[in-house]
Parts: sequence; C-alpha cells; structure tokens
Amino acid sequence: MTSQSMHDLRSKVAELLIVRISGYSQDHYRQYPRWEMANDQLRKLLKEGLGGVIIWGGSCRDIQHRCQNLNKWSNKKILICADIEEGFGQRFHGGSWFIPPMGIGQLFKKNPLKATELAESYGRSTGRQAKSCGLNWVLGPVCDINSNSKNPVINVRAWGEDSLTVSALTCAFQKGVAQTGVLTCAKHFPGHGDTHCDSHLELPALQHHYKNLDELELIPFRKVIHSGIDSVMTGHLLLKNIDSKYPSSLSYELTTNLLRKKIGFQGLVITDALMMNSITRKYSSGEAAVLAFSAGADLILMPEDPSEAINSLIQAIEKGEISMARVEESLERRRNAIKKISNFEITRNASINSCEIENNEERKLKEELITNSSEFHNEHTITIHTNGINLIRVDNSVNCPILIKPAPALSIPESAGYKSLICDELSISPWRKDKNEPLDLARIGNGPILLQLFIRGNPFRGGKERNEPWVNAVKQLQSKRLLSGLIVYGTPYLWEELLNVIEPHIAAAYSPGQTNDVQDYLLKKLMKQSIFIDQKAKKAHNVFTD
Amino acid sequence: MTSQSMHDLRSKVAELLIVRISGYSQDHYRQYPRWEMANDQLRKLLKEGLGGVIIWGGSCRDIQHRCQNLNKWSNKKILICADIEEGFGQRFHGGSWFIPPMGIGQLFKKNPLKATELAESYGRSTGRQAKSCGLNWVLGPVCDINSNSKNPVINVRAWGEDSLTVSALTCAFQKGVAQTGVLTCAKHFPGHGDTHCDSHLELPALQHHYKNLDELELIPFRKVIHSGIDSVMTGHLLLKNIDSKYPSSLSYELTTNLLRKKIGFQGLVITDALMMNSITRKYSSGEAAVLAFSAGADLILMPEDPSEAINSLIQAIEKGEISMARVEESLERRRNAIKKISNFEITRNASINSCEIENNEERKLKEELITNSSEFHNEHTITIHTNGINLIRVDNSVNCPILIKPAPALSIPESAGYKSLICDELSISPWRKDKNEPLDLARIGNGPILLQLFIRGNPFRGGKERNEPWVNAVKQLQSKRLLSGLIVYGTPYLWEELLNVIEPHIAAAYSPGQTNDVQDYLLKKLMKQSIFIDQKAKKAHNVFTD
Repeated sequence: MTSQSMHDLRSKVAELLIVRISGYSQDHYRQYPRWEMANDQLRKLLKEGLGGVIIWGGSCRDIQHRCQNLNKWSNKKILICADIEEGFGQRFHGGSWFIPPMGIGQLFKKNPLKATELAESYGRSTGRQAKSCGLNWVLGPVCDINSNSKNPVINVRAWGEDSLTVSALTCAFQKGVAQTGVLTCAKHFPGHGDTHCDSHLELPALQHHYKNLDELELIPFRKVIHSGIDSVMTGHLLLKNIDSKYPSSLSYELTTNLLRKKIGFQGLVITDALMMNSITRKYSSGEAAVLAFSAGADLILMPEDPSEAINSLIQAIEKGEISMARVEESLERRRNAIKKISNFEITRNASINSCEIENNEERKLKEELITNSSEFHNEHTITIHTNGINLIRVDNSVNCPILIKPAPALSIPESAGYKSLICDELSISPWRKDKNEPLDLARIGNGPILLQLFIRGNPFRGGKERNEPWVNAVKQLQSKRLLSGLIVYGTPYLWEELLNVIEPHIAAAYSPGQTNDVQDYLLKKLMKQSIFIDQKAKKAHNVFTD
Repeated sequence: MTSQSMHDLRSKVAELLIVRISGYSQDHYRQYPRWEMANDQLRKLLKEGLGGVIIWGGSCRDIQHRCQNLNKWSNKKILICADIEEGFGQRFHGGSWFIPPMGIGQLFKKNPLKATELAESYGRSTGRQAKSCGLNWVLGPVCDINSNSKNPVINVRAWGEDSLTVSALTCAFQKGVAQTGVLTCAKHFPGHGDTHCDSHLELPALQHHYKNLDELELIPFRKVIHSGIDSVMTGHLLLKNIDSKYPSSLSYELTTNLLRKKIGFQGLVITDALMMNSITRKYSSGEAAVLAFSAGADLILMPEDPSEAINSLIQAIEKGEISMARVEESLERRRNAIKKISNFEITRNASINSCEIENNEERKLKEELITNSSEFHNEHTITIHTNGINLIRVDNSVNCPILIKPAPALSIPESAGYKSLICDELSISPWRKDKNEPLDLARIGNGPILLQLFIRGNPFRGGKERNEPWVNAVKQLQSKRLLSGLIVYGTPYLWEELLNVIEPHIAAAYSPGQTNDVQDYLLKKLMKQSIFIDQKAKKAHNVFTD
C-alpha cells in the first residue's frame, strides 16, 4: 500500500468512530479523564478524519465554545452528539431538563393526544437547544418498552410500558427533533426494556425468540424507522435464542439480518458505547470494533482505546475480513446524514443563538409537564415542626445534578424549620438490622420526618436502591407517628408500593422528575401554609450567604 | 425640580451603587435568587444609570456571555467586579483557583523574595483572567493581618500574620493585577484580622485606639495606598474607642477623618456588602446607604433593596443632608477609575480571549504554589486496606466547590480500596458524647481510617468547625491503631494542633489549599505505592460511568 492510500484508508476508518470528550475546553476540567479524550489526541484524530464526538458535561456556554473549537480543528463537518434523552439540560447546565419520558407515558393512558403533543414539543426543544449550542445529533428517543418494572437501567427513561404508547410517543419526539434539523437515534435495538441487569456493569441475557421481539420490542423500532428516524443504536444484549454467541451490538444476525434486511433500515447504525463493562470484560477495543463493524454497524461509539480500534479495523480491511465496499457503504450513510444536517442549515438560519438558551415556550412546557405528571396522595399539607427532620435520600450528594443551589428540596423545608439530613452512599448509614424497624432513629433523630426519596433506577448502580427497605421504613415512622410527609421523585413503581401502606392523612406526592423545578412545585403544594411561618427559621435562612 | 433634573439626579445616584447579580444569564439559574437581582430589574437599573455589578457563580464562558450582555444593556461603561481573592477560579469554573494567600504568607517567612514574586504572579493571573472574561475590578487584596488565630472569617484569606508580610505581599498582588489594567481593592478597612466573630452574622467589636491601628492594622493599607491601590473597602467593624456609634463602613470618623484625611487616600471608597447581617439587623437599606455615603464612601455595595437605597439617597440630597458637591466628588472618582480601565484597553489589545482561560504559565504557578506551601509530617506512605475508610470532613457536600469530579480526595483512596464516607452538616453525625473518644466508630465502621479534614474557617459559619474535637478524635484513632493517615486542607492552626499529638509513624500532610489539584498532589505523595495495587478496587473503579 502506498503511504497516500494508507493515509486515505486511515482517514476513512477514523470517520467511522465517535469518541467521548468533555464539554469543558480544558483538559484538566474533564470530569472523567479516564474516558474523555484529551485535546492533543482529539486534535490529532480530528486531523486524521475522525467522524464525530459524543459530549458530556459543562454548561451550555461551555458547549458553544467547545463546538466552535471542534469545527475549527476538523477540516470537515463532524457529527456532534450527546445522550440527551430528557432535554438538553439533562447534560448541560442552562438547558431545559424535562421530567423523564415515563411521565409522558403515564399521561398517555389518560390523554393520548395531549401526551403526543407534549412529546413532540419535548423533542423540538431538545433539538433546538442542542443545535443552538452546536450539536447536530440527539441520541434519543429510547425505544425500549419498560415491560419489566425491576429493570435497573431503563425504568423512567422509557416512554411507556406498552408498545402502543412507546410507538406513539417516540415517533412524536422524533418528529419534534426533526423539525430543528438535528438527527435522532432509536435505542437500544432490539429492546432493553425486559432486562434484569445493567449492561454498563454486566451483559444482560434475554430468552427472546424472533416471535417475542416481533410481538413487543420491535414494534416501536419499526414505527420510528417508518417515521424516518436517522439512526439506530444497537444495545449490548445477549439474545441467546437468536445469536448464542454475540450481543446484539456485535451480532451479524441482529444488526444485519434483522435490522438491515428484515426491517429494512437504511440509515446509520451505531453501537452503544463499547467502553461499557459488558463489552470490555470480554473484548479488547480492537476486537469489539471489528466485530461491531462486521456485524453491520456503521459507526463505532466510544471504544475504550480509539487508536487500537482504528488499527484493528485497518488490519481487518487489509486482511480482507472487511471489504472496502462495506466501508464505503457506511461512509455513504454518514455522508447522507451530514448532508441532511447541512441542507437544513442552508435553508434555515442556524446561527448560534446569542440570547437565551431556554425560551419562554420551553419554560412553559417544562412546567406543564411537571403539573401533568405529578400525583398527590390527598389534600393535606405538611405542618411545621421546629424539631422536624428533612430526610433526603439521593444516590450521591457530591456534584449531584439534582441538588443544585438553591435546591428547593433543602431550602423550602429549612424555611419551615426542618433540619436537612442527607442519606447517600457516602454518608453514615441510616439503617439498622431490624427488618420491621429498619431506620436507625437514634442516629437520625426523633423529630417528625419529612421523607424525600430521589430514586429512579439510575444506570451504573446495579439496582442498589431496590434493596433499601423504604416500605418498612414508612410503616415504622407511621407507627411511631413520626412521618410528617413523603415525596417520591423518580420511579413510579416505588410510589405505587408506598401508596399501599401510607396512611390516608399523611401528605404525600410523586413526580417522575427530580429537578429543582419539580422540587419547588411539589414542596410549595405540600407546605403552602408552612413556608416562612416560623420566624426563627426565616431569620436563620435570611443570612446573606456566599 | 424639573422632571429632567430629577432624571439626571436619579441617574447620578444610581451610578453610586454596585448590585449583586448571578453569573448565569437566565434568572431561574440564579443560585441565590434572594440576593441576586433579576434581569428585568437589572436592565431597568442599568438604563437608569447603575454604576456597577458584583458577580457570583457560573463558568468562565457564562461570565463572558453575561458581561457581553451587561455592556449591551448599559449605555455607559460600568464597573464589573467579583470577590476573587484566590484567583479567578475561586468563583468561576474554568479559571485558576490558587492556594489561599496565607500559604504564600507562610512561605514569606522562609523565602521572602520568592513569596513576593509568587504573589505578583498570583495577582497578574487573577487580573488577566478576570479581564479576559469581561470583569474590570478585583475585590482584593485582603489587607487584614490575621493576628488572631481564632478569627472565624479571615484566617487563610489573609496574606500573613504580621504587618511586614501582609504589606509586602498585598503590594505585590496589587502590582500584578495592575499590569493587566484591572482595578484592585484593599479590604477590609481599617482591618478585620483581630476579630472573634463573623461580620456576615454579627457586628464584630474591637477595643482598638488609633495607636493600635497605627502600629499594626493600618500598615498594609498605607503601603498599598502608597503603591497605588485603586479602591479601599470599609468593613463592618465597630471600633468603640474611635466611633462608639457606627461601624467603620458607616463611620465618618473612620472613612473620612481617618482614611481620606489622615491617610490621604484619593481613590474610590466602597463599603463592604450592606446586605450583611451586621448591618441589616440594625439599618434599613435606605438608612445604611445614606449613612455610608455621608460617612465618605463613594460606592454603595450590595444594598439589600437597591431601589430603596437610591430613593433614600435622593431624599437626603433633596433635603440637603448630602450636598451635590459631595455626589459629584464621588462620581468624579468613579469616572477616573473608569478612565484608567479604558486607557489601558486603548493602549493594549484587550479583546476577550477566545482560547484557553488558564494558560500554561498559570498552570505552572498553581502547581508551584501547591508544592511550596504543602507540608509533610514524615516520609511514610499510607498503605492499602481493603476495609479502609476514607473519612472526609467538609462543610457541606452539596454543590461543594472543592469536591468537583473527579475529586481526587474521593477517587484516589477509592482506587486503593478505601470506602469513602463524608461527614458534613447534612449527614448523620459521626460524634458521640464521650470527650475522650468522640468519634462514634460503631457508626463509622471499624476499618483503618484515612482522615481528610477540609477546614479553613469559612465565612458564614460562625466558627462552627472550632467546636469539632478533631484533636481528641486523632488521639482516639491512634490509641486503637485505626489511623491510617491524616490530611488537613485549610487552616494552619488546626494542623499545628494536630502535629502536637500525631504519632511519628503516621503518614500526614497539610496544605492551605483545598482544590482538586491540591488533593491530587498530597494524595499521590502519601499513597504512591498504594494506588491501583488492589486489583479488586481497581476493577470496581474502572467501570465506565456517566
């Protein structure tokens, strides 16, 4: 091979990769330096022809700045995507962070038209804000059907629990994003809704046959593909009865035979992140990249070692294991996607918005979603207790994206005299070894407790929260007349369980969302007479703080 | 008065105010909505002629965007300042956050030349980054002499414990900032170093006579004034023997007779924030503003209610209590300050830096400051314990500016097998009621403990940390052979106390700084053989996380 053709091949292969970078422009502000490529390597790869990046972290302004630099560093248009399933603000401070899709899924049961309309606006906002900050690809909608309520990784990320709801709402979301000229992505093919474990940690196995898939999981995928979705992401899921050896992201049977041939999808196929444990514990970066591409994927997402992935792909091509025709096919699909973005930009004014990131319409949408998805146990309100305890359960309070100053979950109860106490994986345990009275009240204190549970089945946690005995804890507090109120932010399944035991007079509420806006809405409803009545608490709270 | 002259007067009075705003452009992202003016009111006030703003929060990119908008909204050049005593990164993510001044003060004892050189670079960086983000005024240096080690609010913010050190280093800092064309401010006149309480919470009283001030507190102020400091901030301090009625910020005796006449300061005089409790509990916003201006201040910082402050000042002028000549005098001083900034901008290229916020030189400076100010108890290293506990003491883990991902204080010990446990004001208490064995090990766990104490005497806390029995806790852990290591981040006084009790073989270290860079430096030194040796811990830590 001549050095020129080697250079050309390298450039073509680099175009197949999407690497993970930080939204912060400077290397030492990366939040995950292990996973986020440093700028030196990034610039080198962009020069070599890198196809795109996936961005994590930073504020909207950081992202605008970052994307301007990326475009300067690359000599062609690249794909810039993010995992923004719940609005741009889910990942980037300053954008709109909506309630998770499941909230709209629940509304669909009562009012399908309204729910569909909201899902479309949800998509439109996500696309508009992504674009105004320089992104051109939204890695959503999640098309998984949350048919298994014990699913530790999908849960509220899903648009519903049945195929009709998920199909209708993901199509609406896709339509909304498409109006902004930003690409969309259906995930996680062929369906991650019925799994018991988290593919970030281990490889979930499913007993599904084609028949099962056809009857449930594939329905939303077929629908969004029919509606013109731009890309499909293949999941790390082992469907033993279909491909006993490879997970769908590395499976020719599932990627090519099913997705390409049977379903007939013509757009971009991208793998889920190859640096996830379910892949890395078995395959090297090179092996995973070659297997995924050979299986039929066009783009390789987040290989643990991008250079190794490129080298292995080149070797496979040189050895004839991968044909150039196959490479050209994927490049052609990528070009088409880029063309679609560019055509939109030419016909519309796509300049980066220098004004507000979140517009009034989006702010109203955010509120409407909250009011439409919240539930209240009764009309009671939480009363003041000068020795009250505001017990908050979160995964991790450090850099917690849902406890952002002024965090109403803290500030509102505090203004009514409650002392805040946070229980998370980094704090002294609130539990003791008594199944029926699991809370260690000697540690927590004996005042009346307002319980705020932020539990949504987050990925990477392996469903740890499922082992926490909140049902018994609520019973314990009630039996001692120490429960002054209860709020569940997140999973509807825990809320349903608690509704079975909560006494009629206890003030309680639920929202699928967890953000400041949600906290503010629920707490003001539940504490309306109580806020700022306690003058002492008010005084303490009014101190000018830095 | 005609409506035109009324309009002119209002505009002149508005020019005397500096109001507090958020660094975030959108109202609902304000972290302290109670204290940070909303955009509607801000735009109105800027149109009326507002003199300036003080900014809190946001990333450097947010600040650039914010300042561009401010300049659009105002029809004249305004003062834009921030409380950045420890580098731009102290308040704004992405900037350099250096060790606190006290660290350089300690170095001065050993190597005054080196310390002075570092203080100048420290100032130069602070000014350069402030300017590149749109600010034109640094509210520093702190000229207080920390002569009282129990001072709950100055502590490590001071440049030293004696007048020579503080004078030399504050002059060097001032010189550094001045090289970037950004204004400086000496605070808190006439000296906040010998106080026992925090003026954010209550009014500190001092028994000082002029003689005491002349012999200590005033020395650095005279020096920096002589070196050309642009402004002086008057503190909320009651010097009973000099002015029995008013704190220095509202005292004619201290502001005019002492600062203006005796010392002869010709630059801008600005009050400390008038929304601090020591003022608001006694005076309304209007009263405080009129008193401060009448006392001799030019600019009124952060009145609780800016409209009331403006109206009261106008009334006082109309009643003849404040003369127009006095107003014109202050306006003239403000114009001179603005002129100084503008002249600098004309002669130098002052465009907003589109590249890196922190340059290589500043990164090196940051590291040099850390290595020069860190102390190690011995050459021992911390060993691995699979059941080890990484006990971290911070003020508050929510939105904690010193535990920013990847927070080496957490991640490095975790990579060596330690489980992190955070004790803060929101967690279950680690203490029990036994003076000699104060740590409740039944709650914390019985593994060997690596103790990391982040204690620096933060303002707004009233010296709470002084009541924590860390000396006895260290003794307790040592007697049980459960202390595997100790790090103090912050106040040198606690470190000195602990050095008296710590056993010779215990690995221990100290830094005045608390940032990620500091944590990384100290922990890598103390744990060098231990990091990543525990394969199980390594595996758990390597999971791809979001």
